[in-house]
Amino acid sequence: MDWSPAVETLVRELSRLPGVGRRSASRLAHHLLRCPEEQARALALSIQESRDKVRPCQCCGNYAEAELCPLCRDPRRDHGIVLVVEKPSDISAFESTGRYRGVYHVLGALLSPLDGIGPDRLNLAALRSRMEGGAVREVVLATPASTEGDATALYIQRFIPSGTSLTRLARGLPVGGELEYSDSLTVLRAYEGRIPA
Amino acid sequence: MDWSPAVETLVRELSRLPGVGRRSASRLAHHLLRCPEEQARALALSIQESRDKVRPCQCCGNYAEAELCPLCRDPRRDHGIVLVVEKPSDISAFESTGRYRGVYHVLGALLSPLDGIGPDRLNLAALRSRMEGGAVREVVLATPASTEGDATALYIQRFIPSGTSLTRLARGLPVGGELEYSDSLTVLRAYEGRIPA
Repeated sequence: MDWSPAVETLVRELSRLPGVGRRSASRLAHHLLRCPEEQARALALSIQESRDKVRPCQCCGNYAEAELCPLCRDPRRDHGIVLVVEKPSDISAFESTGRYRGVYHVLGALLSPLDGIGPDRLNLAALRSRMEGGAVREVVLATPASTEGDATALYIQRFIPSGTSLTRLARGLPVGGELEYSDSLTVLRAYEGRIPA
Repeated sequence: MDWSPAVETLVRELSRLPGVGRRSASRLAHHLLRCPEEQARALALSIQESRDKVRPCQCCGNYAEAELCPLCRDPRRDHGIVLVVEKPSDISAFESTGRYRGVYHVLGALLSPLDGIGPDRLNLAALRSRMEGGAVREVVLATPASTEGDATALYIQRFIPSGTSLTRLARGLPVGGELEYSDSLTVLRAYEGRIPA
């Protein structure tokens, strides 16, 4: 579509989004040019406003629009339990259970030496200083079950003070998951982590 | 992510894009918050600029940034042949062949009575007035091979003057397409439209 520079620019910018190829970008551009004008402008505005307003929470690294995110500011939460996750969207998974009442720590990335992501790229300094206060009774590691997730969990274990209990999420069969359709590693983890009936 | 209204708004606006569900919208939002700031702002700006600058070509309905699109303004193109397509992105397919030298007409939609899309929603008035000039020798119908595409082609045939030749794109096996993997309708069309060897 090189006959309209504005459309060409729009397609190029859309195709920089993850998982959006040239063809999807072209379809999205077509939609943005045909949809009601308010809708296209609302999307543009929300992108700009999110970059204007959202910053990392100074305490946990979650999305925040003030110095601290609402979870870290909430006095009704148990600030003695810190659940460590990779990214802000992981928090939604725990919040949607409606049962977790502790707080979080968002790493922002996982250790991946092959991709050049070392400990300095993770939000670890803030985690260390949270530990120093001595108010944290338990750290729950909720990094994903991958090589990078396990490496990151191992790295964090090294600087958790011995007085703080350290746990990881249980691995096992998902609720509703059937044995015959489960991969062997999940079955093995479920067997190794068996609990009294 | 109801703890940041700006992020929540961004996810909601992204999920209004076609083919983007709540989960993809959340992933895209996460990307837009973490990517270099210039990249996010460039996307927002390109959405706004495309809505500011792009309008339908007064002659053919293609994307234009002036009264006429560059194709309709180009004196080297053959304005006696008009290829009728559904949407501006269909033009790319013909331009990429590098061989078509006529001009286009973009309908903007296809007839679909079930969806309430009647002739008044299509860019047909402009097509009629192009026909009235008498300078058009041939109209090529390139609407898709679907119920809506065929209905639209039939509708257009009714008002093409008898002096203007009217053609449709050939249906048949795609280049490189193998018989055993083709659907039966395509094979039938290829047989019906067989040409002297």
